[in-house]
Amino acid sequence: MPNDDTTRPQPQGALLVGGGFIAGAHAEALRRLGIPLLGVVTSTPEHTEDAARRFGLRPYPDSWTALHDPAVTVVHDCAPSDVHMDINLEALKAGKHVFSEKPLGISVDECSRQVRAARLAGCQTAVNFTYRGYAAVQTLRDIVQGGELGEVRYMTGHYLQDWLLFDTDFNWRVGAVAAETRTVSDIGSHLSDLARFVTGREPERLLARFSTLHPQRRRPLGAVQTFTAGNGETEAFDVTTEDQASLLVNYSGGIHASFELSQVAAGHKNDLQLEVFGTAGSVKWRQERPEELELGSRTHERTVRLKDPVHPFTHYPGGHPEGYPDAITNVIRRFYERLGGPVAGSPSIATFEDGLAAARFTEGAYQSQLRGEWVSLGGAAVQTREVPATEVTG
Amino acid sequence: MPNDDTTRPQPQGALLVGGGFIAGAHAEALRRLGIPLLGVVTSTPEHTEDAARRFGLRPYPDSWTALHDPAVTVVHDCAPSDVHMDINLEALKAGKHVFSEKPLGISVDECSRQVRAARLAGCQTAVNFTYRGYAAVQTLRDIVQGGELGEVRYMTGHYLQDWLLFDTDFNWRVGAVAAETRTVSDIGSHLSDLARFVTGREPERLLARFSTLHPQRRRPLGAVQTFTAGNGETEAFDVTTEDQASLLVNYSGGIHASFELSQVAAGHKNDLQLEVFGTAGSVKWRQERPEELELGSRTHERTVRLKDPVHPFTHYPGGHPEGYPDAITNVIRRFYERLGGPVAGSPSIATFEDGLAAARFTEGAYQSQLRGEWVSLGGAAVQTREVPATEVTG
Amino acid sequence: MPNDDTTRPQPQGALLVGGGFIAGAHAEALRRLGIPLLGVVTSTPEHTEDAARRFGLRPYPDSWTALHDPAVTVVHDCAPSDVHMDINLEALKAGKHVFSEKPLGISVDECSRQVRAARLAGCQTAVNFTYRGYAAVQTLRDIVQGGELGEVRYMTGHYLQDWLLFDTDFNWRVGAVAAETRTVSDIGSHLSDLARFVTGREPERLLARFSTLHPQRRRPLGAVQTFTAGNGETEAFDVTTEDQASLLVNYSGGIHASFELSQVAAGHKNDLQLEVFGTAGSVKWRQERPEELELGSRTHERTVRLKDPVHPFTHYPGGHPEGYPDAITNVIRRFYERLGGPVAGSPSIATFEDGLAAARFTEGAYQSQLRGEWVSLGGAAVQTREVPATEVTG
Amino acid sequence: MPNDDTTRPQPQGALLVGGGFIAGAHAEALRRLGIPLLGVVTSTPEHTEDAARRFGLRPYPDSWTALHDPAVTVVHDCAPSDVHMDINLEALKAGKHVFSEKPLGISVDECSRQVRAARLAGCQTAVNFTYRGYAAVQTLRDIVQGGELGEVRYMTGHYLQDWLLFDTDFNWRVGAVAAETRTVSDIGSHLSDLARFVTGREPERLLARFSTLHPQRRRPLGAVQTFTAGNGETEAFDVTTEDQASLLVNYSGGIHASFELSQVAAGHKNDLQLEVFGTAGSVKWRQERPEELELGSRTHERTVRLKDPVHPFTHYPGGHPEGYPDAITNVIRRFYERLGGPVAGSPSIATFEDGLAAARFTEGAYQSQLRGEWVSLGGAAVQTREVPATEVTG
Repeated sequence: MPNDDTTRPQPQGALLVGGGFIAGAHAEALRRLGIPLLGVVTSTPEHTEDAARRFGLRPYPDSWTALHDPAVTVVHDCAPSDVHMDINLEALKAGKHVFSEKPLGISVDECSRQVRAARLAGCQTAVNFTYRGYAAVQTLRDIVQGGELGEVRYMTGHYLQDWLLFDTDFNWRVGAVAAETRTVSDIGSHLSDLARFVTGREPERLLARFSTLHPQRRRPLGAVQTFTAGNGETEAFDVTTEDQASLLVNYSGGIHASFELSQVAAGHKNDLQLEVFGTAGSVKWRQERPEELELGSRTHERTVRLKDPVHPFTHYPGGHPEGYPDAITNVIRRFYERLGGPVAGSPSIATFEDGLAAARFTEGAYQSQLRGEWVSLGGAAVQTREVPATEVTG
Repeated sequence: MPNDDTTRPQPQGALLVGGGFIAGAHAEALRRLGIPLLGVVTSTPEHTEDAARRFGLRPYPDSWTALHDPAVTVVHDCAPSDVHMDINLEALKAGKHVFSEKPLGISVDECSRQVRAARLAGCQTAVNFTYRGYAAVQTLRDIVQGGELGEVRYMTGHYLQDWLLFDTDFNWRVGAVAAETRTVSDIGSHLSDLARFVTGREPERLLARFSTLHPQRRRPLGAVQTFTAGNGETEAFDVTTEDQASLLVNYSGGIHASFELSQVAAGHKNDLQLEVFGTAGSVKWRQERPEELELGSRTHERTVRLKDPVHPFTHYPGGHPEGYPDAITNVIRRFYERLGGPVAGSPSIATFEDGLAAARFTEGAYQSQLRGEWVSLGGAAVQTREVPATEVTG
Repeated sequence: MPNDDTTRPQPQGALLVGGGFIAGAHAEALRRLGIPLLGVVTSTPEHTEDAARRFGLRPYPDSWTALHDPAVTVVHDCAPSDVHMDINLEALKAGKHVFSEKPLGISVDECSRQVRAARLAGCQTAVNFTYRGYAAVQTLRDIVQGGELGEVRYMTGHYLQDWLLFDTDFNWRVGAVAAETRTVSDIGSHLSDLARFVTGREPERLLARFSTLHPQRRRPLGAVQTFTAGNGETEAFDVTTEDQASLLVNYSGGIHASFELSQVAAGHKNDLQLEVFGTAGSVKWRQERPEELELGSRTHERTVRLKDPVHPFTHYPGGHPEGYPDAITNVIRRFYERLGGPVAGSPSIATFEDGLAAARFTEGAYQSQLRGEWVSLGGAAVQTREVPATEVTG
Repeated sequence: MPNDDTTRPQPQGALLVGGGFIAGAHAEALRRLGIPLLGVVTSTPEHTEDAARRFGLRPYPDSWTALHDPAVTVVHDCAPSDVHMDINLEALKAGKHVFSEKPLGISVDECSRQVRAARLAGCQTAVNFTYRGYAAVQTLRDIVQGGELGEVRYMTGHYLQDWLLFDTDFNWRVGAVAAETRTVSDIGSHLSDLARFVTGREPERLLARFSTLHPQRRRPLGAVQTFTAGNGETEAFDVTTEDQASLLVNYSGGIHASFELSQVAAGHKNDLQLEVFGTAGSVKWRQERPEELELGSRTHERTVRLKDPVHPFTHYPGGHPEGYPDAITNVIRRFYERLGGPVAGSPSIATFEDGLAAARFTEGAYQSQLRGEWVSLGGAAVQTREVPATEVTG
């Protein structure tokens, strides 16, 4: 944190749940922030031993022991999505703050339960919508909500990857990440969160078209981690989840949005992009060039706004690229800062309420695809009354 | 034509109908090709005199006289879209070949009549889908149809402009270009033609969402040309056409496409883009960098394919940019080459059949928007039997 | 000239001397402008016949007849550089205006003689430094000389090509284009003219380092045109000219410049770039994206200024790319406009004086390379008194 | 280190010397790697207290105590360049391994002494040429030295910044960083190291031209850190160091290089670039897009090679940007891995020998500028015999 002379994060004791790619990213971020990581636990003692060795951490014998360790004050839930709810509820019951991976749960119901539990427990929560951790994304929100573009009426975005391009590509996500969906819940949730975060608007109606490039894939007979290739023998696996999704979404305030999602888009690695159009200008952000915003106007000039040199999420001078590991560190740093009390004028990260909003988006997309028509996301209204998802806290 | 030693176009006598921006572009292209332009005619003698002066051409007293001048063998119809049919039918009746601006007519019916008339007359036809005139677009088709991407299953595209961003922007097109639509018929038709041309596939089902940024605009009390600003007094004008449209389109062969269209997208001048995804790779073309194709693959390499140095549409060496005026010249050159008989292995330009296909697309979009649901473009089937739109001739 | 309603060029009769690549570019530009091209002549009747056929022009039997044809008022000298002086002097003697290819002559002395002859004859002259024909280059000059960058003190530029990369690549230029040099006189002259034009400053001192990638090349036993490949049998050819040159140049006003030139730089097709740095900002222009200027400042914003929509050298709306053929057309259009008398507020193109300045630059580079040290370009002073090269006319 | 399952670095105890920007970067990298950082020391107890508070480290009372703490095994020398030698020699005397900031010393003599001392002590050394820590830079070297470009004969590079653009910008470096130079020793050393590293060639002859935009600057009356702005009162400061430098350099093996350096280049933040040209292709790397290599060839294709997904310096999947903090972490990680013994097939980082080579380059540039002519760097020969700088160790 070269130029960072703010008050250092409060001492806390963190527990890491999970041993995959993203768990490693959490571990490194915590180490970087100087936050003690007390140990790791995964689904089985064998996996835990392996993760502990890889991350240089103490293994816990089982989840219960880990979650109830009094030294632990914060739980980082990096387990697969279908066990997020169980872990998070147990953690909240034990009075721990929870920093959960996304998606928060595999249904709106699961997410609602967690939101309620967190409120009851009085604990702080976060969902790792990592891309809020880029300074430029925070600036993007300030531009959009600060009125620099005039009245916002239109948005386009996409999240395209190619790591599942071939039918020999496999990962546990191919089964389903949440709500019977994969691409929407896995990466669409990031784009959905980004759009809500940047505009401050809620999606109201949605139409989805899904497609599956490979109805059958080859599943390796061993375990495979995300972003890695398995070797050796395989068996046929019938794919029920979408490889690609196109979404038309109408947001409150009359914003029309179009989103494209794919995990089979050759040449696109982690190509998340959002462009927002207003009556006076437009602004575009691309994750693969995360420190730039492209501003468009009616004049014959285009402007590239580089990362804000004095933003709290900027730690290196202009021209010294900061990337994904820095974004995740920023999100985690912010979470720990908040544990010490309200932080004035602060960048905003996602909470369980935001995780719930993403679940509604995902379920809406699935329902629309099933029915082949527009669906209203208004069913969320009841829950919205008890869980004000629009209250974006920082 | 610096490196062009092909047989020169046959001598023909051309008539220019229309006096606006695009008429000027035709005039320059014809001059460049050494094709005699015998004169110009517009809607009124006053406008004709003005156009004749601006283009350095002989004015015709009226359309009938012009279209029936025996020296005229080819008619370039650059009039507004609502009179294309009348002019083109008269020209065909007079035995002239017709090179028409797009959209070919304001309805499927108008276009069908012209297709039939052209067949009856035995005349050659073209519709100015200019972007086929870029060497890279021809190469794009070769890549896609040649199998370099594997099996094609997905397509994204957009055509974004900002020249109607403000409510003080006005042009005759704001009324309606064709089929009660504006953005779809004016620029969507280009994207639609491009997608058909590149993939060789027909659109089968379509869902559209339109939006209008300015339900009321200020109309100048004088005349306004495309891409120019009017001055002085204005009156209120109720806009019934769309400023923006999002389209989900399913093509034959299982290709899912998503298209975005806007004439109010700040910062985008003439931003037409198409990206095609297959099971083995992807390829992207952008009109604002018209000589490049971006090829994507699963490896950690991306390839930029520059304009083919030996393509018939390439006339200058690599690194010597050729642009829009060259594309329109290529399309017109190709048309005149065809008048001399079949041209082997030739680049392909759009005919009246392609103009009809674009009209079906436009009407389908309008119908879908009206109904708020998916529509089948199968109603085209009857006409397709008599008018094989899939037969792309060069 | 779609949006061009300025007074049309005066009628003139043009003669084309030369039958190569650039002669074809002149022919097309003249045709486009509606300027009558009366015929073509080259070094031999056979070549003339061939060129006449390719360009669709009338062949002249010989140069003398052509240059003295009373109908000819303007001579376009597109012959090889070593005969420019003879042709141009003869044309001036016959009272013709001369639009000459670059380099104007093969030595400072040759260029001085032509400058004096033109003054004596009272004829208009131009040298085809094509890149002045881009609207963005004219804007670049306005930015630099208008003070937008503060005080200018530093410049970098390059002109890199790869068409002579392999030792099997050959062209008459490999012999020598001017002043015993090739890369400097052939493409360095463009960069040198661009730098003078944009800054309005003269080079004072210069240091050059030349290198030759292939001391021996294979010369085809037949003739070869620029930018084309010869086939068949070859013989060894000892290369005495440079493939690459690095130049440090100090301009009047305390501007330090560094230029890189190469015709063997793999991957660079026609990569001419100039960046100018001042005390308040910088601006960069690249020929391969000719309609953009990149403005840099101390803030965390970068600006891309697109082509000026109302510049006299802009003929198509934003987003409709205009390129090299348009630039050369602009330069020629400008020349013919000037034949009708002074043109107020006009873009500036290069005259014989500018051709002489380029020759001084080339000779200076050659001398510096020979001596291995800095040379003063002050030897030009005597000639500068009689030939004010700094008087850049438009 | 998400995908990093290599053996973890050996436990070591690190000492941080210095409290500025780059010291913070070291601290964070060490924390991230899980390497115990035992404390910090700076020039005065007051500054040490301040740095200790900012970095969350234990303060040492003075350098001697710190450098001789038996728990310390590695010294990170992040002090200003003029005290590097004293600190490093004392550290080596105490038997510590030394990871030093650049430039290693303020003269060739200072660097030679340190090289000798390190050999005598048998300790490991590193100089923080950070940019070797990018995976793409290591790949760049492999491409160049692996022959993919054919025979390498030409190189261009620049390192342009703008943080000293205004005469009100000030920093201790304005005095002089090493060898009476500033821009060359501060940032030219990075480019010089990069060129040697990538090509494996030594510079033999060099010509330099320096310029100073601001002969007088305003020095704040308080202390100022790098990349930060001082406030309040100032005094005049006569600048004797260069703001800009142009260098022509001839390397062994017949490679001609041209380098541009500036700290007053508006709009360029940390714009380090190197392009290498061979007889078969070219490759370019830019620090501000550090994960990409642009490959050029004679064909009409360009290739962008993204970061190697399985390179030891790659820790996140494609499309997840890794930047400057990751590069510095990689360099430090590599250093600690080497402490455990030789590492096979490993990426290579810079040692004291490389620091000495950079010093020779800097002194050569200074001498050439003084004399206004080419200088030979052959004076290095004697030292090269005893200190084989060409032996690049990993």
